[in-house]
Amino acid sequence: MPKKLTKGFQKGDIRPFLVEGEQVGLVKADVIKQLQRYPEIFCIRNCEFTKQGIVELNPAFRDYAERTKQVDIVLRDLRSKGIFSALQGWRDEYYEVKSEYRSLLKMDRSATPLFGVRKYGVDINGYVQHPTQGLCIWLQQRSNTKETWPGKWDNMVGGGLSVGYGIKETAIKEAAEEASIPSDLVKNLVSAGCVSFFFESEQGLFPNTEYVFDLELPLDFVPQNADGEVQAFELLPAKECVERVFTPDFKTTSCPVVIDFLIRHGYITPENEVHFTQIIELLHVPLQSLYTYKSVLEQKQKLKQQNQSQQQSHLANNIKTIENGHNNKDATINN
Amino acid sequence: MPKKLTKGFQKGDIRPFLVEGEQVGLVKADVIKQLQRYPEIFCIRNCEFTKQGIVELNPAFRDYAERTKQVDIVLRDLRSKGIFSALQGWRDEYYEVKSEYRSLLKMDRSATPLFGVRKYGVDINGYVQHPTQGLCIWLQQRSNTKETWPGKWDNMVGGGLSVGYGIKETAIKEAAEEASIPSDLVKNLVSAGCVSFFFESEQGLFPNTEYVFDLELPLDFVPQNADGEVQAFELLPAKECVERVFTPDFKTTSCPVVIDFLIRHGYITPENEVHFTQIIELLHVPLQSLYTYKSVLEQKQKLKQQNQSQQQSHLANNIKTIENGHNNKDATINN
Repeated sequence: MPKKLTKGFQKGDIRPFLVEGEQVGLVKADVIKQLQRYPEIFCIRNCEFTKQGIVELNPAFRDYAERTKQVDIVLRDLRSKGIFSALQGWRDEYYEVKSEYRSLLKMDRSATPLFGVRKYGVDINGYVQHPTQGLCIWLQQRSNTKETWPGKWDNMVGGGLSVGYGIKETAIKEAAEEASIPSDLVKNLVSAGCVSFFFESEQGLFPNTEYVFDLELPLDFVPQNADGEVQAFELLPAKECVERVFTPDFKTTSCPVVIDFLIRHGYITPENEVHFTQIIELLHVPLQSLYTYKSVLEQKQKLKQQNQSQQQSHLANNIKTIENGHNNKDATINN
Repeated sequence: MPKKLTKGFQKGDIRPFLVEGEQVGLVKADVIKQLQRYPEIFCIRNCEFTKQGIVELNPAFRDYAERTKQVDIVLRDLRSKGIFSALQGWRDEYYEVKSEYRSLLKMDRSATPLFGVRKYGVDINGYVQHPTQGLCIWLQQRSNTKETWPGKWDNMVGGGLSVGYGIKETAIKEAAEEASIPSDLVKNLVSAGCVSFFFESEQGLFPNTEYVFDLELPLDFVPQNADGEVQAFELLPAKECVERVFTPDFKTTSCPVVIDFLIRHGYITPENEVHFTQIIELLHVPLQSLYTYKSVLEQKQKLKQQNQSQQQSHLANNIKTIENGHNNKDATINN
């Protein structure tokens, strides 16, 4: 799926990033090298239980606010040194860094690929059922001045999930900003699932999950950009849309959303696509399986405790045997 | 997801089942024990490259027909001995046993769980958009005389993919047999993807992929069974459908289809379901990752060849060094 894979994703290259004992990211060797300069903020060591190299945020930091502040200091310093191209896209827009159930800190969105933090976004598939052309899909062409993927074709509406905004709320906000979709149309938005994929580029790691929404639009509606982030909209019949998706002019990380849409709406079928089931599996890669450090650790610790208690009970048995052998007389005497 | 997990799925318990060098299944220890009685048909050994225990169909069998015949002999013998309860549900209905790109043999559907063969089926979500009750879903109650899951609630229409039938063809056939859906309605069938899951019961292993179809029905249409396999149909509002799915009265392996439908149609959303992304990942488990024996083997063989050629070139270098040391004079003489 990734069009632009600068280097193979090799297990040994990448270490879990831990905050408060929970894995929230994946850090590659080039980033680790830089983080070593900040030993008061990042601890880089081998885990005594898993024997695995880990990158840990200093556990002395008290809370969400302090963790956010300390990481931000490092990121701004790295940015000023011009080390990572990713940080040149600094946004002053924060993404949550979350474990399974809680937010642990927030981080500028430009930095999340350096830490392999799971990124969440929303996408709206705007479509019409055309009387002669059948299923047609609205695409946007991104502005040439956008930080990421300038000039590329993309879904009608999309955006990252920033701190403080809900999922549907983000979809509605982006629908207004990017495509001027009025509230009487946006009320027809249908939540339709999510796609998950893992993308790697020179910017870093993108373990992305996109919440997808479908929006059927009237034939006469034409999206209009309101925030300067879109240079054009185009309505394409499904067939042409598929062709566009497979050109280099399409934003790579938006392809899964279109493909998922075309599968759910009966355009790509098991009859016309020989890799149908494999594609659907790849549109939903189990990203959660990449963030399992804590559960592995707990298993290892449990095993060690079991071994210890077995050894102790073995020792206790030995002692008992010795006592039975050597102290029987004393016992008899004491009785 | 599985309601009925008789025993944990442990890696070490299960061996790849190979036909013509390609992994097509997974075999548990209790089945291996029985297959050992048929050494001319099944070879149970350790792979010299992967060091893994494997179950292999005798590679001497020439073709699809002979492989099918030989396996059938074993299955009928095991059935007559009453060893596996799965085989008591013998159907005289064949499923394909396929590697990624080709069919290698066919096997009675009752036996496929014993060999952990990937099973494919179709399911139709029949639904109506009710003016007052909103999204409503047709469910069927299976006949009490069905071999599998008698009396359980199930999707409106469903069935396994038998040898000789296409995917959409099976959906249309089952729609007629199970629910008497006429051709003018069935033409609205929309292919909507697939769900994949791994289920284990006392019958064996079920690495299942269900191709799902949606069918919006008119408000006044009532399904009628035609083949005696259904005892009732009921139209339930989405909310009650979810409740039904989580009772023991619902066929476990049909739950993923309903949940996927409710996600795709905006009833289960990231707003009302905290485990939204995890559930979607679990509805699409990467089953293909369980059938990787051939690629692992090829990797190991390649590695061995590389090592050998390195050793050979090392040896060649040594010989050259020796020749340079010892034979220089001879060379000079010969010159």
